[in-house]
Amino acid sequence: MFKHVDYLQFQAKPEKPDALLAAKMQELVGGQFGEMTVMMQYLWQGWSCRVPGKYKDMIMDIATEEIGHVEMLTTMLARLLEGAPSVATEKAAAANPLLAAVLGGQSPQHAIVSGGSALPRDSQGVPWNAGYIAASGNLLTDFRSNVAAEAQSRLMTSRVYNMTDDRGVKDMLQFNLARDTYHQQQWLLGIENLIADGLVEDEIEGSNRGDEKEFARRTFYSFDPESTAGEGRWAQGQSLLGEQLEYVPDAQPLTDDKPLGPAPDPKLYVTYD
Amino acid sequence: MFKHVDYLQFQAKPEKPDALLAAKMQELVGGQFGEMTVMMQYLWQGWSCRVPGKYKDMIMDIATEEIGHVEMLTTMLARLLEGAPSVATEKAAAANPLLAAVLGGQSPQHAIVSGGSALPRDSQGVPWNAGYIAASGNLLTDFRSNVAAEAQSRLMTSRVYNMTDDRGVKDMLQFNLARDTYHQQQWLLGIENLIADGLVEDEIEGSNRGDEKEFARRTFYSFDPESTAGEGRWAQGQSLLGEQLEYVPDAQPLTDDKPLGPAPDPKLYVTYD
Amino acid sequence: MFKHVDYLQFQAKPEKPDALLAAKMQELVGGQFGEMTVMMQYLWQGWSCRVPGKYKDMIMDIATEEIGHVEMLTTMLARLLEGAPSVATEKAAAANPLLAAVLGGQSPQHAIVSGGSALPRDSQGVPWNAGYIAASGNLLTDFRSNVAAEAQSRLMTSRVYNMTDDRGVKDMLQFNLARDTYHQQQWLLGIENLIADGLVEDEIEGSNRGDEKEFARRTFYSFDPESTAGEGRWAQGQSLLGEQLEYVPDAQPLTDDKPLGPAPDPKLYVTYD
Amino acid sequence: MFKHVDYLQFQAKPEKPDALLAAKMQELVGGQFGEMTVMMQYLWQGWSCRVPGKYKDMIMDIATEEIGHVEMLTTMLARLLEGAPSVATEKAAAANPLLAAVLGGQSPQHAIVSGGSALPRDSQGVPWNAGYIAASGNLLTDFRSNVAAEAQSRLMTSRVYNMTDDRGVKDMLQFNLARDTYHQQQWLLGIENLIADGLVEDEIEGSNRGDEKEFARRTFYSFDPESTAGEGRWAQGQSLLGEQLEYVPDAQPLTDDKPLGPAPDPKLYVTYD
Amino acid sequence: MFKHVDYLQFQAKPEKPDALLAAKMQELVGGQFGEMTVMMQYLWQGWSCRVPGKYKDMIMDIATEEIGHVEMLTTMLARLLEGAPSVATEKAAAANPLLAAVLGGQSPQHAIVSGGSALPRDSQGVPWNAGYIAASGNLLTDFRSNVAAEAQSRLMTSRVYNMTDDRGVKDMLQFNLARDTYHQQQWLLGIENLIADGLVEDEIEGSNRGDEKEFARRTFYSFDPESTAGEGRWAQGQSLLGEQLEYVPDAQPLTDDKPLGPAPDPKLYVTYD
Amino acid sequence: MFKHVDYLQFQAKPEKPDALLAAKMQELVGGQFGEMTVMMQYLWQGWSCRVPGKYKDMIMDIATEEIGHVEMLTTMLARLLEGAPSVATEKAAAANPLLAAVLGGQSPQHAIVSGGSALPRDSQGVPWNAGYIAASGNLLTDFRSNVAAEAQSRLMTSRVYNMTDDRGVKDMLQFNLARDTYHQQQWLLGIENLIADGLVEDEIEGSNRGDEKEFARRTFYSFDPESTAGEGRWAQGQSLLGEQLEYVPDAQPLTDDKPLGPAPDPKLYVTYD
Ligand SMILES: [Ca+2]
Ligand SMILES: [Ca+2]
Ligand SMILES: [Ca+2]
Ligand SMILES: [Ca+2]
Ligand SMILES: [Ca+2]
Ligand SMILES: [Ca+2]
Repeated sequence: MFKHVDYLQFQAKPEKPDALLAAKMQELVGGQFGEMTVMMQYLWQGWSCRVPGKYKDMIMDIATEEIGHVEMLTTMLARLLEGAPSVATEKAAAANPLLAAVLGGQSPQHAIVSGGSALPRDSQGVPWNAGYIAASGNLLTDFRSNVAAEAQSRLMTSRVYNMTDDRGVKDMLQFNLARDTYHQQQWLLGIENLIADGLVEDEIEGSNRGDEKEFARRTFYSFDPESTAGEGRWAQGQSLLGEQLEYVPDAQPLTDDKPLGPAPDPKLYVTYD
Repeated sequence: MFKHVDYLQFQAKPEKPDALLAAKMQELVGGQFGEMTVMMQYLWQGWSCRVPGKYKDMIMDIATEEIGHVEMLTTMLARLLEGAPSVATEKAAAANPLLAAVLGGQSPQHAIVSGGSALPRDSQGVPWNAGYIAASGNLLTDFRSNVAAEAQSRLMTSRVYNMTDDRGVKDMLQFNLARDTYHQQQWLLGIENLIADGLVEDEIEGSNRGDEKEFARRTFYSFDPESTAGEGRWAQGQSLLGEQLEYVPDAQPLTDDKPLGPAPDPKLYVTYD
Repeated sequence: MFKHVDYLQFQAKPEKPDALLAAKMQELVGGQFGEMTVMMQYLWQGWSCRVPGKYKDMIMDIATEEIGHVEMLTTMLARLLEGAPSVATEKAAAANPLLAAVLGGQSPQHAIVSGGSALPRDSQGVPWNAGYIAASGNLLTDFRSNVAAEAQSRLMTSRVYNMTDDRGVKDMLQFNLARDTYHQQQWLLGIENLIADGLVEDEIEGSNRGDEKEFARRTFYSFDPESTAGEGRWAQGQSLLGEQLEYVPDAQPLTDDKPLGPAPDPKLYVTYD
Repeated sequence: MFKHVDYLQFQAKPEKPDALLAAKMQELVGGQFGEMTVMMQYLWQGWSCRVPGKYKDMIMDIATEEIGHVEMLTTMLARLLEGAPSVATEKAAAANPLLAAVLGGQSPQHAIVSGGSALPRDSQGVPWNAGYIAASGNLLTDFRSNVAAEAQSRLMTSRVYNMTDDRGVKDMLQFNLARDTYHQQQWLLGIENLIADGLVEDEIEGSNRGDEKEFARRTFYSFDPESTAGEGRWAQGQSLLGEQLEYVPDAQPLTDDKPLGPAPDPKLYVTYD
Repeated sequence: MFKHVDYLQFQAKPEKPDALLAAKMQELVGGQFGEMTVMMQYLWQGWSCRVPGKYKDMIMDIATEEIGHVEMLTTMLARLLEGAPSVATEKAAAANPLLAAVLGGQSPQHAIVSGGSALPRDSQGVPWNAGYIAASGNLLTDFRSNVAAEAQSRLMTSRVYNMTDDRGVKDMLQFNLARDTYHQQQWLLGIENLIADGLVEDEIEGSNRGDEKEFARRTFYSFDPESTAGEGRWAQGQSLLGEQLEYVPDAQPLTDDKPLGPAPDPKLYVTYD
Repeated sequence: MFKHVDYLQFQAKPEKPDALLAAKMQELVGGQFGEMTVMMQYLWQGWSCRVPGKYKDMIMDIATEEIGHVEMLTTMLARLLEGAPSVATEKAAAANPLLAAVLGGQSPQHAIVSGGSALPRDSQGVPWNAGYIAASGNLLTDFRSNVAAEAQSRLMTSRVYNMTDDRGVKDMLQFNLARDTYHQQQWLLGIENLIADGLVEDEIEGSNRGDEKEFARRTFYSFDPESTAGEGRWAQGQSLLGEQLEYVPDAQPLTDDKPLGPAPDPKLYVTYD
């Protein structure tokens, strides 16, 4: 069960409105790697977690924090949208390049749909959907998805950070950047802890590992005759599982199996001889 | 530019048709973490890569391999779908529990839409979409997404591996499991190599790091009074950046900023006092 | 079966083209609460209606009218798009702020995809989808969805109405605003009529009402210690079902059930102790 | 900012696992009118609310409760999925009709994707998306959407309630049904309160009402010569705004405007004379 | 403007209910090539058509007919769903293979969401979306899309036709098959007519044809050294534009341009040397 | 299995960057009829093809070419995005109309998400999805879809061709236009070849043709009393199957079947008498 306190985790006070920036910052709210994604990803991982104690508590803690991050962003966007020129007409733009840019670049939905508030959509207006999140019940694979989500999210935050001089916006993003730095580490340290606790053997997802075609788990295949990929660390030395890495230039099929299906049921009217 | 040879990378020969298994294996073709996802993710990362030489070549090599993995899976599914009872009616099921299971569980689209072939959809029939993939131009964050994709993909392959006794299907999945094991390592070794080559300073995405709120990048906040998350490695000892980790139980707002937007434009008919 | 007459229900004649306005008005055609939504919602409710006579006829009548509303909007947009500067280049904008605004804000798909016509998409280019509509077979719940759809739709129309000075556009929107006013009432009067006809007992959806946990249908729970929600009408006096409303500040869990699932099948490789 | 306590609001203890029921109950979690929808709809309305005090607090209170409802449902589904026959093969079904039904009807993603937990998807596997929710900043229109959402949601809960004999599942659904009964009233009483507080004039969304084509806001148009819709309350007596309702059988176009766009830009290669 | 008459274009009377068939027939209603697609495609093409007279009238006529086809299908599905065992439990299936098949294979949404009616979704429950339709304003390209839609639609209808013995269902599908046969021809004859009327020069979309790289419009490139594609009609003889076709086996890049972008803006944190 | 050579099929060298054009050209990459669509459509058709030899080889050849077309486009877009003013603020636009246009019209995701590269999305930011493609196993219907896709794709390319003066962009588009001209013919010649080889009887999809309602496959029904559609070739003369075409003005229902479903299960709470 959840509770709410009517204060933000961190302040969200822009110096002044900026409808163009608000349109861009939608990516940080409702984009593939925005705050809604990590909020929902962690909530679903927490609800699916079968390990009581510190792991489940940790996931629920960060999930709860992230709901508050969406709240901070939506507050920031509502303030950036104050006084957006939603009812200005083409004529007004004729004498005013700045207004022209704003008219062109702002989200029409910020006026028409939400009446000057943030939207659960990305910077191009695409609604958030649950195909962005991962929750497999397997903590190793999910922590991997979480490091990735925080890294991508931080990179986008950082790009937006450079798109504005507004000190209030930058102030909040400095907090968000730091949280994304911490959270990347949190998940990597979580993997360390899973290994230390014996919940997983090593850092490579390896269920049914004994059944693998052994030659294929230590080999880099190249498919371009001019490829220089053999110079990389992934193609020489020891693998992370302690095996010798192998490099196969200009790889050939390992079989003479040709990709043709069997003659189908005539009642399906598939074309065949 | 690409070329094609009309042989599979690895054979895809089931012992016998199995329409129920084909429906499930759609998840490995067109699901969020299926072969189409890694194929498209690596192609887009390769096309966006600005580092010539081994990195770009490596990404294009694996991207090219993954097109062939989709090909292997689609061939396997076409063969599993041979003779699916697509035109059987309810009556036929009345005397045959096995047929009943198949009739219930097979994908109607395998008969109606594709005529007995695989579909670019997941196991529930949802069309694949590009919201599943990441390609940011930043190799560190993208390699993180790639480790995650291979780990999730391997886990799902492994779960499906346990759902069948068909030796031909298992034979191919043993190859796929091994590739996913190798590919997880490939991306982790890629991160090692980025650091060794000086393209990135450490393994934590850290652009604009100097501008972060420093206290917030080494702190775990808990939002549940009974949380035991403080017992984890992420809340004690040194961070991966060499700082002292801090644990804050029962975290409180860091501000008295209340999340209420300004009075909006009356022309938007938003309700306010 | 349907018929068509090649005249609009109401005229759709803008004074002059305006590609920026056309981009915004897409929200009224193909947005979540645009004309396509009510057209499809009413068609599907009519086709699903099991009550012959005035109810089914009323729903089919309004559904048929709404197809004509999409027709009016698409005609208006085609006229607004006449002469849109689709082939103007960046250079042309350099000397002309108005053109700059139009170049920035118009929909590229209006030129590239539809060749100067409306699109079945919202103002941000997201294709209309059937996840926007409701048709449950239960007239009370569907009429509730219909009042909501007309109210949301009218609000957005009203916001767009203030974004233009074009007398032709305003003329048509004055008709649409009025229809949305009437239609809100139509559905509320429909609910009155359902009760008068004995098809439903009261205005609250109440199937299986006798099985409800009685205490939970007259109680407002607050989850914020500083909440003032207890001051509202919803927390005091009689409910619409004639019961005494109760206000519970700072609500606590009603159970000691902790949200942890059972130990799962090991073959699923979910992490657990 | 949010907090979490690790107890459910209400218990979620099924008598025994039932994978088929779990597949159906996904509709109540991630469907168009499931708990995720009301959770997200209320959170976004609360974050967009510009009226401090009881209205904003009330919306945030129910939003916070609804996060807990998703939590209850996900816990229930994890328990229903315990021991689902995910690795059973076709052969096992041959001798067992019950197993055949389960194999056919269960969600393959419950095994392959989530490892025996709920998914943020509907009963057919379609990922939840933000196109399901409404948050306009206008409390009248949003409360209308909320009554509708609770009514639709209650109806679906009630239908599922009749699909099981499991006393534990029914126990929880009896709580949910009651909350949906209360919440329908909460939003209707909220509209009463908005009028009493003078924040809105009447219960019909009426911004720019003075500009409406007056004849069109009190008229029912019929488009079927045999329609009996004129017998309904919506076509006779006084409107809710105190005007005389009018019924127009076999409605004709109100204009001779024909829906044809102007001759387009030749560079768009649209076909014209 | 549209009208409605409350009779079907053709009868839709199944001999008896069949919930499994109803689930499959959803593909013909709301699938990529179902009746909703052609209904919406033709409506949008008609509304976008700039050629008055027979072309616009023809498109609006077939569009109007197709609304009636969706109506026929939804009526058929409502009748097939009568008495679907929506409230049967797992236990009931244990003794009844037929019921097991139905329980497994029917759409849970037919009971929970629509209460026994058709849904605007495909056979796997994916909501219909406007990304399925084409309306470019160019009659040649649109008629091409229309032939394709009718051909695909007919093929799927034909596959479903073989999945049932119900004479009532087959009776209606015999009408639909015939309409799809006629409609394929209608669009091909439409292309003939466009050429005869001089609205288009030939049957190949050729705007800006004079600017084409001439060598590339008469050449088949092969990318597989063992390809036999040179044996086809497309690789020998005259093209439809009267040019000599050329076959290039084992095609090589026509340029030495390597696909690497320029060094990007450092502020975007893209990885580069 | 596939191979890659690190050269483009044709050069993709713009004269200079142009972020506005890049945003528009996304339609040619990830739009409904962009290069990703034909790439994926042909790959899936090739993998589903059951006719060995020239047909399968031809489909795989063009599929392989199309992967290279996506590669050309992504390279072109990366170059057009060089130096896009991603970090320019509102203030900079105030004095510069051209910058204003660019700021308004460029895709925010080109900076925030991809760091200056193309995206697998259309010109409005909608992610590509597999609902755009067709692969039925039936070569006649699929070749029809392919002609349509190439015609639509060429038309959009041609419209974009007119939106720029950049000689480098035009140079590449001149190649693409020519390929789309050739590919339209390729598929039409493919249909000729299918007939010549006896794989299909005529050019009209006609499975189960003997079961059709014969009158309905040669009749044009008009649903508008003023329609002039009877003047078209589709309504007079011989059909493509050699039958006499018939024109039915002001068509009436062919049945007295009224579209009302049966009384439903009371447990579904559908409204009925
Ligand atoms: Ca965050
Ligand atoms: Ca793979
Ligand atoms: Ca309307
Ligand atoms: Ca609830
Ligand atoms: Ca049809
Ligand atoms: Ca191409």
